[in-house]
Amino acid sequence: MTLEQAKKDLYALSAKMAAYNHATALIFFDGATTAPKGTSANRGQTLSILGEESYNLATGEQTVQLLEFLDSNKDSLSKEEQRMVFLMLKDIRDMQKIPLEEYVALQKLMVEADDVWHRAKETDDFALFEPVLEKVFDFYKKIAKWCAPEMDSYDYWLNNYETGLNKARCDEFFATLRSKIVPLIKKISEKPQIDDSCIYGDFPVYKQKELSDYLMRLMKIDMDHCGLLTTEHPFTISFGSHHDVRITTNYHQDNFVSSLYSVIHEGGHALYDLNTKDEYAYTALDGGVSMGIHESQSRFYENLIGRSREYVELIFPKVKELFPEQMKNYTAEDLYKAVNKAQPSLIRTEADELTYCLHIMVRYELEKRIFADELSVHDLPKEWNRLYKEYLGIDVPNDKEGVLQDSHWSGGNIGYFPSYALGSAYGVQLLKKMEETVNVKECLKKGDFEPINNWLKEHIWQYGSLFTPSELLEKALGEKFDPTVFTDYLEDKFTKLYNL
Amino acid sequence: MTLEQAKKDLYALSAKMAAYNHATALIFFDGATTAPKGTSANRGQTLSILGEESYNLATGEQTVQLLEFLDSNKDSLSKEEQRMVFLMLKDIRDMQKIPLEEYVALQKLMVEADDVWHRAKETDDFALFEPVLEKVFDFYKKIAKWCAPEMDSYDYWLNNYETGLNKARCDEFFATLRSKIVPLIKKISEKPQIDDSCIYGDFPVYKQKELSDYLMRLMKIDMDHCGLLTTEHPFTISFGSHHDVRITTNYHQDNFVSSLYSVIHEGGHALYDLNTKDEYAYTALDGGVSMGIHESQSRFYENLIGRSREYVELIFPKVKELFPEQMKNYTAEDLYKAVNKAQPSLIRTEADELTYCLHIMVRYELEKRIFADELSVHDLPKEWNRLYKEYLGIDVPNDKEGVLQDSHWSGGNIGYFPSYALGSAYGVQLLKKMEETVNVKECLKKGDFEPINNWLKEHIWQYGSLFTPSELLEKALGEKFDPTVFTDYLEDKFTKLYNL
Repeated sequence: MTLEQAKKDLYALSAKMAAYNHATALIFFDGATTAPKGTSANRGQTLSILGEESYNLATGEQTVQLLEFLDSNKDSLSKEEQRMVFLMLKDIRDMQKIPLEEYVALQKLMVEADDVWHRAKETDDFALFEPVLEKVFDFYKKIAKWCAPEMDSYDYWLNNYETGLNKARCDEFFATLRSKIVPLIKKISEKPQIDDSCIYGDFPVYKQKELSDYLMRLMKIDMDHCGLLTTEHPFTISFGSHHDVRITTNYHQDNFVSSLYSVIHEGGHALYDLNTKDEYAYTALDGGVSMGIHESQSRFYENLIGRSREYVELIFPKVKELFPEQMKNYTAEDLYKAVNKAQPSLIRTEADELTYCLHIMVRYELEKRIFADELSVHDLPKEWNRLYKEYLGIDVPNDKEGVLQDSHWSGGNIGYFPSYALGSAYGVQLLKKMEETVNVKECLKKGDFEPINNWLKEHIWQYGSLFTPSELLEKALGEKFDPTVFTDYLEDKFTKLYNL
Repeated sequence: MTLEQAKKDLYALSAKMAAYNHATALIFFDGATTAPKGTSANRGQTLSILGEESYNLATGEQTVQLLEFLDSNKDSLSKEEQRMVFLMLKDIRDMQKIPLEEYVALQKLMVEADDVWHRAKETDDFALFEPVLEKVFDFYKKIAKWCAPEMDSYDYWLNNYETGLNKARCDEFFATLRSKIVPLIKKISEKPQIDDSCIYGDFPVYKQKELSDYLMRLMKIDMDHCGLLTTEHPFTISFGSHHDVRITTNYHQDNFVSSLYSVIHEGGHALYDLNTKDEYAYTALDGGVSMGIHESQSRFYENLIGRSREYVELIFPKVKELFPEQMKNYTAEDLYKAVNKAQPSLIRTEADELTYCLHIMVRYELEKRIFADELSVHDLPKEWNRLYKEYLGIDVPNDKEGVLQDSHWSGGNIGYFPSYALGSAYGVQLLKKMEETVNVKECLKKGDFEPINNWLKEHIWQYGSLFTPSELLEKALGEKFDPTVFTDYLEDKFTKLYNL
């Protein structure tokens, strides 16, 4: 094998893997968007076959030989090619440890889990979901043991979403947050509460769709390469490369800000994906490097941009134009306060910036204990409700708005949740750095997102998966990650908001 | 290789092919429904790679050996397995004659053609479409030469959609139709014309969507396995098996019957696919046997059922409920007459039963001449317009409503159009046969589609591709196909309608 040929083969192999990813991602997306409800077994059949094909492709002798040859000739590869080979070998070595029949069974299980979760949520029936969720957790425990027998199983999954993350670091990070957030929430509870009535009312979905379109254009999302659809749970997905990205939202007719912030949040993910360097398309470098960094971009847009006073003032005329009757007695300041009302609540995706991390901590605790075999899936709802009471002080009236609310477990995204909190913290530190050279407030007043997007593209987006999450972050920040920047931001923001 | 193992391998191979078909059909469907408009190159990349994978699977040594082994042991196979092996070998032998790089190039070309056609139709710009359409026709000429060098190229494609069909038979069939239809149209033109004003007005799309849902339920389409979406051009597609079927329609706010008959037409296709025997799923026997038979089912539902007096009377109360203002001055009889108004028109999919076949003849003539190199793609619009004048007596005002109206050429469905006319004729003969044992009029009066669907399932739907089109048809009819049954039906219907 010549090095020249091996490099060509590397790109061809990457493209082939991207094509399989395109197909499987689209089949999943179809299931979440427009598929008739009796068709999940049909998707399961196809996904298990395509899963087997891509497993064979990835772990086949030819592939392994190629990547090992390139790895042993690392010094003759570009930085990009080195990283591609590293990432592909890492994935393949994990995959090789999962027996083929188990890998295929997993594809089928995930289609079933997604389908059952939808029905269980719809009918508020955890008992329906329980057996399949148990299978999912058992499967993920087994995978961790196969892939990294020397590692704690939950650490394996945390590290899977954010290289370097483990329970010890999570515990420390969450302790830092808790020490600031809990007293803040207490102080706020003793103050007069914000009137958020302006966000409730009757907001026809077709008008909300117009608002989504406006928000996406405002953020300068390339709508020729990014579509928007409606799903039970909002998410972002790419098909084959960053040239085709889709985001989804969920409209609530009685509350227009729920979808508004979903669109901004998912739009933040989309911008990250869409702005990877073009030459990384169809390679392992395409798209974001970790869920922590990904969430830093989505939470950056959702909260630091979307919940700022300047942004709310910027979009308020459009809101008023779309909902003249509903908004006639309200000002931009009313809306700004309403979308920043700190109040323990049931639904994570609609939580305010301050209480949000407590929602994450509930999930983190539960996952940790399930992986430590200290908690059974059967007891999840009870424990969920108990922790909501303990951390947020609220009673969970049903599982639909409780343990069944998120799609992560049915989607196999276990160990993912801490990424949201980490991302929120990364985002604030990135904003602080950005403000050294970009007058962000001024940009928002003018509705000019170019300088903001350019900064993020220069420091984060363009690199795709070229660097590890911490390399990328430290390169952008010029310093180490420091969660107190986040807690200081929260303290400052909410002290002002509530005159604490 | 043991026969037992070979049979197992046959089903595994079929399932794998079905999985690739699922993926590629869904990627195409995504492009036609919800994909952002700048993403077609991304789909082209994936489709060309998956195309190469399935080409290699289909033509690989292992596959060919397996099928040839089974073929040489035909006598030990069930009737079903014999047919599966026959159909798969036939496809593979054709595929083997197309060089791999050409096969891959074709996948990319078809994505491009679909994309360019959409834009060309939108902007009424045939010049934009011309170069890619030329490539498509050239490609299909080449494929015919590779696959059947001994055959006339256009005959190859006619036979591809309807086994046994060729130009000579088409010419004869169309001559039979023309000899009855043309004088009928002339007689009608001398009579007072039908007032069809009840179908025009302002019909909000969301109300039309409710109507679609009602129509699909009425036809007893299994909505758990059949979805409905909106596209530029209505079509029916299956994903991997008959367990997941999708139909599409196109709503016109100013005319509610356009989508109404699209839904019924595509619903007829869907019923055929959905009701294949369950054990044929994921094999070459799944789904309809030919486009002629497929169109016989869709045109059966659209015209023989949908445009009958009894059916219009059946659905009229629902139409009135959805559009009370628009319909307040009209009766079911007005609507029945309006949807049967025979009048030369521009758009094939909206043509009445009588003039419809003339639209087909225009397309047939043009394809025939292009394949005979007697007509260039460049001259297509001019020739299209000339033939519309000659056959239908009307002037085509623009290419959007002329040569750009159909998606068939951009979709590579060349030689397909005669299937519509054949299917229309098959359908009438099937109805006549059905009426020997089923009181169809009575069923429609009661809105009871069970006996109709049961008859079609028993005689047509369940068999999938087990029989050749003519075997299936003759088995159902107990006699040979006779196009004069169709022309007699037209003469009878329109003589009564217009008091000729």
